[in-house]
Amino acid sequence: MNIDGTAWRSVWADPANDSVGIIDQTLLPHEFVTMRLTDPGQVREAIVRMNVRGAPLIGAVAAFGMSLAMNADASDGGLEKAARELGTARPTAVNLQWAVNRMVQSLKPLSPSARPGAAWRLAREIADEDVRLSRAIGDHGLGLIREIARARDGDEPVNILTHCNAGWLATVDFGTATAPIYRAHDEGIPIHVWVDETRPRNQGAGLTTWELAQHGVAHTLIADNAGGHLMQHGQVDLCLVGSDRTTAQGDVCNKIGTYLKALAAFDNQVPFYVALPSSTIDWSVTDGIGSIPIENRSPDEVLVVSGRSVHDDALTGISIAPPGTAALNPAFDVTPARLVTGLITERGICAANAKAMAELFER
Amino acid sequence: MNIDGTAWRSVWADPANDSVGIIDQTLLPHEFVTMRLTDPGQVREAIVRMNVRGAPLIGAVAAFGMSLAMNADASDGGLEKAARELGTARPTAVNLQWAVNRMVQSLKPLSPSARPGAAWRLAREIADEDVRLSRAIGDHGLGLIREIARARDGDEPVNILTHCNAGWLATVDFGTATAPIYRAHDEGIPIHVWVDETRPRNQGAGLTTWELAQHGVAHTLIADNAGGHLMQHGQVDLCLVGSDRTTAQGDVCNKIGTYLKALAAFDNQVPFYVALPSSTIDWSVTDGIGSIPIENRSPDEVLVVSGRSVHDDALTGISIAPPGTAALNPAFDVTPARLVTGLITERGICAANAKAMAELFER
Repeated sequence: MNIDGTAWRSVWADPANDSVGIIDQTLLPHEFVTMRLTDPGQVREAIVRMNVRGAPLIGAVAAFGMSLAMNADASDGGLEKAARELGTARPTAVNLQWAVNRMVQSLKPLSPSARPGAAWRLAREIADEDVRLSRAIGDHGLGLIREIARARDGDEPVNILTHCNAGWLATVDFGTATAPIYRAHDEGIPIHVWVDETRPRNQGAGLTTWELAQHGVAHTLIADNAGGHLMQHGQVDLCLVGSDRTTAQGDVCNKIGTYLKALAAFDNQVPFYVALPSSTIDWSVTDGIGSIPIENRSPDEVLVVSGRSVHDDALTGISIAPPGTAALNPAFDVTPARLVTGLITERGICAANAKAMAELFER
Repeated sequence: MNIDGTAWRSVWADPANDSVGIIDQTLLPHEFVTMRLTDPGQVREAIVRMNVRGAPLIGAVAAFGMSLAMNADASDGGLEKAARELGTARPTAVNLQWAVNRMVQSLKPLSPSARPGAAWRLAREIADEDVRLSRAIGDHGLGLIREIARARDGDEPVNILTHCNAGWLATVDFGTATAPIYRAHDEGIPIHVWVDETRPRNQGAGLTTWELAQHGVAHTLIADNAGGHLMQHGQVDLCLVGSDRTTAQGDVCNKIGTYLKALAAFDNQVPFYVALPSSTIDWSVTDGIGSIPIENRSPDEVLVVSGRSVHDDALTGISIAPPGTAALNPAFDVTPARLVTGLITERGICAANAKAMAELFER
């Protein structure tokens, strides 16, 4: 993805294999700052504090964290400790555990001396693979957008609503929900994106708007409350979101508020698609609402909003509630499969049900 | 309603009939400041800028604005001009037009010299009446809450979710959605309120939390995105919201995002009640989605969030999106009657359909 004309990924390893670079997403869109992480504790912190976020990205970053851990202590104990530390940084997205398990399975059979080199190779492979998966999701989702564009008169843009940031910042490159959007835009299909603000952390307002602007895709920011009204009035052709964990029957756990948009889409016959690499599928779980652990984050994320002061341009936080107000901050919700029109994966599009998913992934 | 132990209404006239007092709701919960309005232009501005807001309250305030106008120019032309100016300050809530029309109908037959005195009397009557309506809504809604409390074991509180502020700050006193809550709390029923933040203007975070705290009602602030998740997990017993305009068939136009909560309530079999004085019913309209004009407010309300700086305690605004981002800001949406369990009015509770409403109001 280009930033001011230069190609970036959202995570990278230095050639000497002794540090990992990330973009500090807590400062976007106000400041573009990179961070250099040199030990697994820093990697865990960056995931916990959401300097990096997005299911595919935190998987890749955790893989690099495992590599940093192997530099320091490649013993069996070191491997176990790093896996525990990184795999539990956040509970909801399954990618963290997926990436960490993959690293452990590959490294465990090797001798400690062989582990560091193998770890960096595999972490790079996981990151590269994520890029390929995002590209493939873009290819498959493009077809959907093309169809909508073909069916309409004139130059009216295809109006796509998205929630949170399932963009290149949530992956290593291209994004999940945004990948088809970028592909369609590059193909000359007129696109307009309704960007949900995505309270409490405002990933839509701060990250998705910024990404879309960098790529030149027309977009309009809306409060999370507005999407239903727009759908009632025919102003949304397609909803396209990401997933932090997808169950074997097609329930989708994604950023808090996704479920409300899925209900509105269903009520207004707007297609609701979820774009996801298969690394977010948890084949061990069927009932998403009953089984997926939902992270409750700090109440401060609800009580204090961050941004750039209109008075003095400083980055600051502001309290929006009376002192002492209690707040609850569940970070994800589960959209039942019955509300999902389809899943856009790297293997193609399938219905959100156990049979279609098992067929597509030959399980 | 008591503020720090002193009884207040949200609008009052001075005894000399030459000014109207309001609480500046744009500064709450951070500062408690009153404003003295002395001409109808100031009243219009206070409504437009939302120093006062809430359908019942802006009706009462507009009535006082008509009285101020009669002080200055009680001619037929003066009456017409004031009605135009005040009746169009905001388009969605029907109460503005209802209050202004009521003033015009009473004042028009009178001689200009009799109009100022009559105007102040009638405006005071409209305000007093609103207080009586809110009290009656409280009485009727109390029964609902009592029933839920009776059906449960032990001291578990009745969990009520509300959106925006349909509290005493939205009326002259007591509130619509909050009136039953205050009554139940005063009766000793354990209550806990989930307060939707209500982006973009944060009336939940800033006003409802403040009101509930003043009254001692337990509450927790949540992002607008969170309500569906809470309902999926059985943490909401009742949704209770207000209405800015209710159609003759029971469609409810209320603060943007209400529709999404109604969908979630329906999907999870949580009762969804709307508390409203009959002054918000527009008997001339049936189809709410097709017919009610929805106010689009300034994009800046989405792009800039206001609050108290955590660094220097100053009230300030912060930008949450990249410079130049476009935003759309519809202020209301329409919840179709099929999603509304019932309407709590001053005459009692009825189903949200044309027949039940016509019967209750003998039309």
